[in-house]
Amino acid sequence: MKNYGHAGNTFNKYGRMEMKEKDFLRKMLPRFRQGTEIAVGPGDDCAVIDVGKKDYLLFAVDQLVANVHFAMKDCTPESAGKKLLKRNLSDIAAMGGLPSFALLTVAAKFADKVIDARWLDKFFAGIEAEAEQWGVSICGGDISSTRKGDAVFTLSIAGRVEKKKLCLRSGAQNADILFCTGRFGNSYKSGHHIAFVPRIREARFLAGDYTNTMIDVSDGLLSDAAQLSSMSGCGIRLDAGKIPMRKGADLQMAQGEGEDYELLFAASPRKALKLKKKWPFKDVSLTEIGVFSSGVRAGKIFDGKNDLVKKISPGYDHFTTKK
Amino acid sequence: MKNYGHAGNTFNKYGRMEMKEKDFLRKMLPRFRQGTEIAVGPGDDCAVIDVGKKDYLLFAVDQLVANVHFAMKDCTPESAGKKLLKRNLSDIAAMGGLPSFALLTVAAKFADKVIDARWLDKFFAGIEAEAEQWGVSICGGDISSTRKGDAVFTLSIAGRVEKKKLCLRSGAQNADILFCTGRFGNSYKSGHHIAFVPRIREARFLAGDYTNTMIDVSDGLLSDAAQLSSMSGCGIRLDAGKIPMRKGADLQMAQGEGEDYELLFAASPRKALKLKKKWPFKDVSLTEIGVFSSGVRAGKIFDGKNDLVKKISPGYDHFTTKK
Repeated sequence: MKNYGHAGNTFNKYGRMEMKEKDFLRKMLPRFRQGTEIAVGPGDDCAVIDVGKKDYLLFAVDQLVANVHFAMKDCTPESAGKKLLKRNLSDIAAMGGLPSFALLTVAAKFADKVIDARWLDKFFAGIEAEAEQWGVSICGGDISSTRKGDAVFTLSIAGRVEKKKLCLRSGAQNADILFCTGRFGNSYKSGHHIAFVPRIREARFLAGDYTNTMIDVSDGLLSDAAQLSSMSGCGIRLDAGKIPMRKGADLQMAQGEGEDYELLFAASPRKALKLKKKWPFKDVSLTEIGVFSSGVRAGKIFDGKNDLVKKISPGYDHFTTKK
Repeated sequence: MKNYGHAGNTFNKYGRMEMKEKDFLRKMLPRFRQGTEIAVGPGDDCAVIDVGKKDYLLFAVDQLVANVHFAMKDCTPESAGKKLLKRNLSDIAAMGGLPSFALLTVAAKFADKVIDARWLDKFFAGIEAEAEQWGVSICGGDISSTRKGDAVFTLSIAGRVEKKKLCLRSGAQNADILFCTGRFGNSYKSGHHIAFVPRIREARFLAGDYTNTMIDVSDGLLSDAAQLSSMSGCGIRLDAGKIPMRKGADLQMAQGEGEDYELLFAASPRKALKLKKKWPFKDVSLTEIGVFSSGVRAGKIFDGKNDLVKKISPGYDHFTTKK
């Protein structure tokens, strides 16, 4: 695996961070038996719990590892804290939900004096500022030392979504339009992976009224689109030339790097027409980048008619290079 | 800090693991603003969420760090997995609740070949077996690599408790009896810290009917009793001679080592009488070890009349050596 761009991160050639680990988890989690209240278990952006009310409870966890997900020397502790919470908020957004409360863990070697009380105070301040902005209660946590000096932070978040607004990765049908919010690529160098705004506002506008099939782009546009495709049982014909790119990005970066924290979603042709007229957010672009097609096998993405750019099987992720 | 007994753990002289870190967290967490649905925020064994039904939702997180909370060379991966879940179950028990669902994270350096796919498979199998026993749905998770080779596992758990059964650390009153379940001390060498059974059965019997003031002993009997005392606003007169000791333990170990995962709780004299008659569990002892006393300042524990054995202030933990 070739490190790209930045000494402190583990983006590989295609920017897909830790895909091997993610694949492993995709194989391991299905072993766990799910109780009847679990409406959606492992495999989506959040677990969905049926608490017997008009809303579902959403439940997700994400990690931030120093010098894996952020570079200690380039990132303020406040920004690292914000990123941890925002990664989780992006997962809640992808389900069409609103965040409610969260728990925090810190594991670090305090004797190292890199992650010390002063650093942690600022890290907590970053989380605090972000949490207040979104009305999230950080209602508990745990702190531990590590032996070798890694610093691992986790945040587990609960949220809520009205049952009719729930968005899953499955549900896209033949002829549905594939939309994206925002721009893609060059997230790391541009600082977007730290500065991004989780798309909760946009997701809440879309959920239920325009779509019930959505994912947030963390692993890379093609990877995450392939998840929609695979779980919906319907292939995708992508129009890669339409993918909106962040400044400094090329198509390969836009398709594969990840950490964009934008939304990908499916809308029926009728709803797509209405959506393009009604999209109210001047500061966030909305772009049609493809169409779901039952003529393409689930988990496969073609650029135009004949150019296979991505193929996944359940529990297995394979990248086909696109020149 | 002097390591005791075992190369792979960080028990200090009094067995109180990571108290410095825990104290830090006690200072940091109160900064976070809590929404109106948070009935109990940071500072108890679980956060308590009022979801507008007859039950509260409980929410807690715990970590397991390799060679801090368990020694890689002495502990099977299955046992480590079980311990991670059981630590969380013990927190749910302390609130009088039942566990429902949980999320799991793994951060490790997979290239090290210590924590590899085979090890993790067994670790997950341990969690799976324990989860099935208690009806816990492991409904999602995340996996990441670390840079330096630490292995950090977290589990965030949700549970439920009927509102009238909720047990907090606060609520003990003058003349209430301090009870404990089971035995104390020598948890590490005896293997109890791995093999223990979380006291959910016992807690469910007690909660609401005999007590609403409870804590589980993870930091050490005196430390955790002092938490009950401090948060209840009422000191404790302990009868240290009555503390039931695990085989191989002395009084100092029993009072200070921690990782006992037993329950400490307060019962009124009237309920205490009834409880001693009705306690149905032949395999788990129930022992009166002290009495709450308004004549002793909150957060202070005297052994008998005059021997101060423990004193804490809010956010500050101080151990007074008892010979």
